[in-house]
Amino acid sequence: VTHALLVTLEHAGIFIFAMTGALVAARLGLDIFGLVVLALITGLGGGVTRDIILGIHPPAAFDNWGYLLAATAAAVLVFFQSGRVGRRERPILLLDAVGLSLFCVTGAIAGVDAGLGVLPSSLLGLVTAVGGGTMRDVLSNRVPVIFQGDLYALPALLGAILAAVIATQGWPPVLLCGASATCLVWRLAAIHRGWSAPSAPGAAAPGD
Amino acid sequence: VTHALLVTLEHAGIFIFAMTGALVAARLGLDIFGLVVLALITGLGGGVTRDIILGIHPPAAFDNWGYLLAATAAAVLVFFQSGRVGRRERPILLLDAVGLSLFCVTGAIAGVDAGLGVLPSSLLGLVTAVGGGTMRDVLSNRVPVIFQGDLYALPALLGAILAAVIATQGWPPVLLCGASATCLVWRLAAIHRGWSAPSAPGAAAPGD
Amino acid sequence: VTHALLVTLEHAGIFIFAMTGALVAARLGLDIFGLVVLALITGLGGGVTRDIILGIHPPAAFDNWGYLLAATAAAVLVFFQSGRVGRRERPILLLDAVGLSLFCVTGAIAGVDAGLGVLPSSLLGLVTAVGGGTMRDVLSNRVPVIFQGDLYALPALLGAILAAVIATQGWPPVLLCGASATCLVWRLAAIHRGWSAPSAPGAAAPGD
Repeated sequence: VTHALLVTLEHAGIFIFAMTGALVAARLGLDIFGLVVLALITGLGGGVTRDIILGIHPPAAFDNWGYLLAATAAAVLVFFQSGRVGRRERPILLLDAVGLSLFCVTGAIAGVDAGLGVLPSSLLGLVTAVGGGTMRDVLSNRVPVIFQGDLYALPALLGAILAAVIATQGWPPVLLCGASATCLVWRLAAIHRGWSAPSAPGAAAPGD
Repeated sequence: VTHALLVTLEHAGIFIFAMTGALVAARLGLDIFGLVVLALITGLGGGVTRDIILGIHPPAAFDNWGYLLAATAAAVLVFFQSGRVGRRERPILLLDAVGLSLFCVTGAIAGVDAGLGVLPSSLLGLVTAVGGGTMRDVLSNRVPVIFQGDLYALPALLGAILAAVIATQGWPPVLLCGASATCLVWRLAAIHRGWSAPSAPGAAAPGD
Repeated sequence: VTHALLVTLEHAGIFIFAMTGALVAARLGLDIFGLVVLALITGLGGGVTRDIILGIHPPAAFDNWGYLLAATAAAVLVFFQSGRVGRRERPILLLDAVGLSLFCVTGAIAGVDAGLGVLPSSLLGLVTAVGGGTMRDVLSNRVPVIFQGDLYALPALLGAILAAVIATQGWPPVLLCGASATCLVWRLAAIHRGWSAPSAPGAAAPGD
């Protein structure tokens, strides 16, 4: 059951993150191939980083038609629907939040499955969750979403810690959905209410 | 014979990609040391990424005077000849196409030699081919060449698939030159004719 | 003694590099969480890259409260003192030079300890030293410090070579401080005197 659950969450996360990459590519006016490339990097980048850190050779994304198809399908879907979605930033942020909440859990579980403790597993979940989106933003010359002022890394870290504890303690796998939901609700609330955190005194204003 | 051929292609690819890094550095007005650094990263970045993915510790570039010399020689050559080459973008694109067609083959063969199947070997060839150039473009704040509208990733993927099939089937190594040439001709034609692919409907125009 | 010395240098390097990340974040006007994220990436990025290259799974930074605390403490210190430090670039450069001189030594020693020769250990020291700062600059869209015209990579490479030779020859560990100091003095002199190296003839002027 756990394995099937994880595989489902992993595919869903890849699909969602790949959509954000394709939407960013569409905003940049990239052609279909640039769009697919950015979708693949965004969807698969976090998991590849996780597998490299765990010493899994080759990373799962290199040997898994399902992962490749999920990312490519997301890119094709966005390509043909981008007339509807248009250029707006908000769908990107919302989908990114969903991907974040899925990958912080699957990344942390991968760590626990590899025999790591709660601390390294949680950090691995965090890196998995923010990796693909950070690559997307660096490659497309956007301000990386991890810096965008709203709470981003902290909800992912909390979701990862919860997932690592659940897996380490052997609690029911269904609780992992709760860990994911906790991250998602916190992140969506941060986006919705514009919750933000204080800047360093004396610092420049954003965009300064 | 295969090994000698591969080593030759690898050195040629490092030399060529390092030249593109040095040319970009010259356009940016970097001094000789910045130029050498960018040449080394561009020439060796794809192969280091490949070796990390394959779990080869340390990556070959760290323990191979020949690789370092090839990249450094390219940087020195460009430094003293940049008065002739000048600031033009086209030589960078053409050399990059040659490097791309060499590395998609050597990367795919490295995967097959490590026991990977055709799919992961092909993707490894793609990552090896686009890795160094992407690092070059991100570090120098250029639009990554993988997004530049002309066909780029697709010829590299085709070359890598052909090379992986040839190596897996045990066909004569000389055919690898055909795989490389296929990638090169397609990529050069895309540059020459300005072949490009459709953008997503409703998307912003490039540079918008 | 060597081990205690190395652990001390490593923590000091993480603390110092994390301060540079936090100072850059404060200049960008990032909030406290973005600032902590950039501090962690800058302080831990070089060592994580080193461990991935060496095949150490998971990287030490993922399983070491001390490393995490050192980086977080640096971020908190900068956050509350940034009113004093202000927006100036110079403290970032000076601290970065200190971190560079510490990490080129610890990176090279880690290579020797893993059984690598002098050449790969030296390159590993260079990558460790410049890795975190390069990630910081790419993520915050600054010109990467490795390109900034003053001598940067060369002092780090010299420090790493000296450290690798000292460790390989079994000379007294205290000499490692000399290797670090050599890098630091050279780098500080380059900053102070504005030492720079020639650009390629015919190249664009910096900022052109």
